[in-house]
Amino acid sequence: MNRYAIGLDYGTNSCRSLLVDLDTGEELGSLVFPYPSGEHGILTDPADPNVARQNPRDYLDGMSAIIPGAIEQARKNRPGFDVREILGIGIDTTGSTPIPLNKDGVPLGLLPEFQDHLNAMVWLWKDHTSHEEAAEITQKAAEIRPEYLTKCGGTYSSEWWWSKILHCARVDPDVFQAAYSWVEHCDWIPAILTGNSVPERMPRGVCSAGHKAIYCEEWGGLPDEEFLSSLDPRLGELRGRLYQKAEPAGVRAGGLCEEWAEKLGLPPGIAISVGAFDAHMGAVGAGVREGSLVKILGTSTCDIAVFPGEKELADIPGVCGIVEGSVLPGFYGIEAGQSAVGDIFLWLVHNLVPDSYGASQNEKFESMEKEFAGMKPGATGLLALDWNNGNRTVLVDVRLSGLILGQTLHTKAHEIYRALIEATAFGALTIIERMEAYGVRIDEVITTGGLSLKSEMLMQIYADILGRPLKVAASEQTCALGAAIFGAVAGGSITISEAQASCCRMREYVYQPIPENRAVYQELYSLYRTLHDAFGTGNWSGDIELVMKKLIEIREKQRS
Amino acid sequence: MNRYAIGLDYGTNSCRSLLVDLDTGEELGSLVFPYPSGEHGILTDPADPNVARQNPRDYLDGMSAIIPGAIEQARKNRPGFDVREILGIGIDTTGSTPIPLNKDGVPLGLLPEFQDHLNAMVWLWKDHTSHEEAAEITQKAAEIRPEYLTKCGGTYSSEWWWSKILHCARVDPDVFQAAYSWVEHCDWIPAILTGNSVPERMPRGVCSAGHKAIYCEEWGGLPDEEFLSSLDPRLGELRGRLYQKAEPAGVRAGGLCEEWAEKLGLPPGIAISVGAFDAHMGAVGAGVREGSLVKILGTSTCDIAVFPGEKELADIPGVCGIVEGSVLPGFYGIEAGQSAVGDIFLWLVHNLVPDSYGASQNEKFESMEKEFAGMKPGATGLLALDWNNGNRTVLVDVRLSGLILGQTLHTKAHEIYRALIEATAFGALTIIERMEAYGVRIDEVITTGGLSLKSEMLMQIYADILGRPLKVAASEQTCALGAAIFGAVAGGSITISEAQASCCRMREYVYQPIPENRAVYQELYSLYRTLHDAFGTGNWSGDIELVMKKLIEIREKQRS
Repeated sequence: MNRYAIGLDYGTNSCRSLLVDLDTGEELGSLVFPYPSGEHGILTDPADPNVARQNPRDYLDGMSAIIPGAIEQARKNRPGFDVREILGIGIDTTGSTPIPLNKDGVPLGLLPEFQDHLNAMVWLWKDHTSHEEAAEITQKAAEIRPEYLTKCGGTYSSEWWWSKILHCARVDPDVFQAAYSWVEHCDWIPAILTGNSVPERMPRGVCSAGHKAIYCEEWGGLPDEEFLSSLDPRLGELRGRLYQKAEPAGVRAGGLCEEWAEKLGLPPGIAISVGAFDAHMGAVGAGVREGSLVKILGTSTCDIAVFPGEKELADIPGVCGIVEGSVLPGFYGIEAGQSAVGDIFLWLVHNLVPDSYGASQNEKFESMEKEFAGMKPGATGLLALDWNNGNRTVLVDVRLSGLILGQTLHTKAHEIYRALIEATAFGALTIIERMEAYGVRIDEVITTGGLSLKSEMLMQIYADILGRPLKVAASEQTCALGAAIFGAVAGGSITISEAQASCCRMREYVYQPIPENRAVYQELYSLYRTLHDAFGTGNWSGDIELVMKKLIEIREKQRS
Repeated sequence: MNRYAIGLDYGTNSCRSLLVDLDTGEELGSLVFPYPSGEHGILTDPADPNVARQNPRDYLDGMSAIIPGAIEQARKNRPGFDVREILGIGIDTTGSTPIPLNKDGVPLGLLPEFQDHLNAMVWLWKDHTSHEEAAEITQKAAEIRPEYLTKCGGTYSSEWWWSKILHCARVDPDVFQAAYSWVEHCDWIPAILTGNSVPERMPRGVCSAGHKAIYCEEWGGLPDEEFLSSLDPRLGELRGRLYQKAEPAGVRAGGLCEEWAEKLGLPPGIAISVGAFDAHMGAVGAGVREGSLVKILGTSTCDIAVFPGEKELADIPGVCGIVEGSVLPGFYGIEAGQSAVGDIFLWLVHNLVPDSYGASQNEKFESMEKEFAGMKPGATGLLALDWNNGNRTVLVDVRLSGLILGQTLHTKAHEIYRALIEATAFGALTIIERMEAYGVRIDEVITTGGLSLKSEMLMQIYADILGRPLKVAASEQTCALGAAIFGAVAGGSITISEAQASCCRMREYVYQPIPENRAVYQELYSLYRTLHDAFGTGNWSGDIELVMKKLIEIREKQRS
């Protein structure tokens, strides 16, 4: 008897499936489906660069393709593969990505009357139209419900649930009126698979509810009606048509319904897990546990850690969220992140790197890394702040910008690239130090995501700066793997840690900090923190003059 | 009867002559002679990038070429041209550029026994081997002769006379021992032309003496022997073999000697003026007068202003020098400068500008300027410090570095170029404000040098930032023109202001500040000053956080 599970990972531009053998960790099948609508799956508005929407049809079409595709591959890879041995299906998506629904649980974007209506579509996580509403929610909460801000680092974001819904009410009352209820993308897919069309009864995940919708059992679930009405009476009225209770992933949302069982070629009744966000399931797929920080290193980063639920955990200022059970049952899930990492390197290579380094983006990156490979830490004389896209953790401030200092008349593009890598690592260390200051142990860092495989140089710099072993998750699809694990758990015959033990492997090579590099980077980090605190916090006082002087000293020492 | 004069301008890589009609301003002849020795005339040491020396032979070979060349052209351009109508010859050179001499006034570098000996050659202004000696002189003066520092902005430089001579004594006692005396390049050429071979009697210019050798009549000329001996007893002994008295340019150093009259094809006895530095004579050639700042805009800048001698002028902290008569007789000459301007733009274009802007340096500059031409001030959201090569005025600190902030993920190379132009203009305004704070009136800025002609965009930004009309000197050879004017004055029958009136014209187009740009730049300048003071001075305190916030505010306003 084999045990399999399927994970579905809905990303920004595509969705993918993963079919895994839970006892061996073997990945038997996987298919990617690029969303056909818009630009790489994103519906945009030429008049407003903040708009980012999606077509719910793409999600359904994707599901119809990627599950049968994975099964087909599994049949090839494993003779005798039997779909009846699939324990469950788990789902992760981007978020906060809210979808307006009619009373029958149908996304407005699927209805003919709204099909060309951007505001009726899915509001993708990176839609930034709601920044004014976010500021308003933060201010109102600070005034009358300060406890609401303690779990989200002190600032409510424009990327989140209530900002988007409130913005819709303000700018498009017709759509808002037509929307009987709203659902997160990660909760809508389980509702579809289980055939659940009653908005109030769709199982909702605590990951999205807790991290983005100010849901907390301490104050009775969602924000109270009085608070919501103080923002907009229509928001207060909406509350009763949303949900009362949210549950962790791994809880069984229901069984696969007849309709979709037939479409997908699966037996009906297979367990469907409550959904969660990609980063949280990715952390589980990467092997998150107490003492490990999982860092998803991509265009931006998401940092996930857990803290035992029985201990007292203080609110940690500046982290994106602390939600009980949002990652692992019995643990607080802690989410943090950097607004741009890979994006900063791409910005550099596309805008400021001469063709003498190579013709293509990859050639440029490679030859820049070769150029700085022999340089000691600090030898560039440069120091940068990683804020080209603002700072998510720990400053929670989008109104910040990049900074580079230390340039001479001889500074080269590859030295700036190295300084930017270092800056993102210093930003990562700032997050770790903040968590540790509030009692969260971080003994090692597990990385996953594109950048963790692309550049060994970057990984070694990260290990030297973070001062901890840096591991790389073996699976290249940790989000889908985590989703599959939760699907299996929803099936009832396996625990998360059992599944992690067989499925979550690390690559053999572990990046260890090199002591002499670490020592120099500690000096540089204190200069980074001076800039960070001086430009990032009000009321800073101290000696900023020394930053340039010390950088020159360190440069001279490291070059001699 | 016509009146002519010849100016000789010895630059870093070449020397040039200019033969001018003093009554019409017509430039009748000019020849450039690139120095044949070393790399573009500079003798370097592969083991030490700070070394920059020159071969004195190049100066003599140059003179033998450029004076006859200018005369030949004048004969073609002006039928009936008569060398007997040349009133005088003036000379400017780079500086501080000291030359070790033997007892017969011959540069050691011309002697066979020293011909391959770098330390026996001319120590070019930009030789930076003497930074430790400079620091030592500054410290010793601060301890026992604080008045010595008041005229040079508080810090003695490694580019200057005593630093170089002391360094020679330390690193090459043989050469120091063989050097009976030392002479500035600008004083050696007049000595050659007048046939003066006694070091103690060579006429010395107050421009070089006052700006670089701590010469001041207040304390009896050169620094006293006790002070010099406290640095090194051999320096104290040297003092008596240098000079007692220095005189302003325009004073007759002597008549052209028979030997050189014959070599050059000129009548003997023509007046030879006391020499001075290129920037000072260039300021006169550009038309400097009370209320005008002359700005020589090149790879670096030199800023020259004058202040009426009869008034009380306070010492101005941070300016390179204040010397009575160093520019115009009867006025204090005030010299300031920026260590890198054009050099910063060249650094950018050579290191950080992709080929999509063009294949050549000039194409890149031109297309970057086209790209930002339509942008309003502040629309880039960027702010930079112009310190890639340190800060000469007003901070007098080489241990500073470049800084750029305000980058997003969309920042382009041409926006950085614009920010760097603005940074150099803010640096220029800081110099003007410092002078004004100490009572020096600056109503207009007269520019000369390569950059003043290359980019209209740059010039308009400068006018908007400086808040004053920006004029461009008509002559493209203002240094040689200034030298010619001083040559004429040495002849005795014309005054500087008479010669300036006919020779120093301005280009017709004057760049006027545009009020709405000026207003935004005033806001940006206050942010620049925050960065400038925070990173450039000790004990700064204030709110640096607002810099990023305000830049974003301004950017949003200026883009909307």
